Amino acid sequence: MTTSDEVVREYWTRAEARDWAGFGELLADDVVYELPQSRERIRGKVDYLRFNEEYPGDWHASLVRAVGQGSHAATWISVTTDGEEQAALTFFELDDQGLIARITDFWPEPYEPPPGREHLVERF
Amino acid sequence: MTTSDEVVREYWTRAEARDWAGFGELLADDVVYELPQSRERIRGKVDYLRFNEEYPGDWHASLVRAVGQGSHAATWISVTTDGEEQAALTFFELDDQGLIARITDFWPEPYEPPPGREHLVERF
Repeated sequence: MTTSDEVVREYWTRAEARDWAGFGELLADDVVYELPQSRERIRGKVDYLRFNEEYPGDWHASLVRAVGQGSHAATWISVTTDGEEQAALTFFELDDQGLIARITDFWPEPYEPPPGREHLVERF
Repeated sequence: MTTSDEVVREYWTRAEARDWAGFGELLADDVVYELPQSRERIRGKVDYLRFNEEYPGDWHASLVRAVGQGSHAATWISVTTDGEEQAALTFFELDDQGLIARITDFWPEPYEPPPGREHLVERF
């Protein structure tokens, strides 16, 4: 029995390897992928695989954290694209067959700290 | 035995209730809080409680998802501040006593979809 955290670790390993056949084996046929920040949604394995295969840039994903519980999982990855690093946070739902049925991706951007908390924070 | 997902559910319940005494009971004395987007870090329960108590705006947090595994957990919350909604993604590490020792918070902002994937996506 594969646990949800193992499934999502494989998801990122196969994405990084551009092993799209293996990546597709982790997905339900009716997988739904959502990007809440841009309010974009992709329905179905065929289009979602194509989205990943066509994704521009020489990106590399390394896993920072994977957490799985029952049919749910979350990952935090570090993505480097042409020397620029960005975090991505992804929440997953698996179906009864252990296939990934729902993916919600967040891509936070850097921002300047708001004023008023300098007495509490250090910068890194 | 309290599981890590139960601890982080309580974290958000007590934050939303402004129950700062109860919130503090979930935290290790040497808790470290990080905001990678602004590269801000707060060290210790005293300052981290103060950061939360002083946080401006009439914000309300509701839990969308909590995932816990061993000493790790992740949450996805929806925060409404003065009518504006934003997602926040948080990764937690618990210490041997089950207290929250490390918190990493991400606050993604809306963005316009980049061109080139209109053939695959719908908007919501």
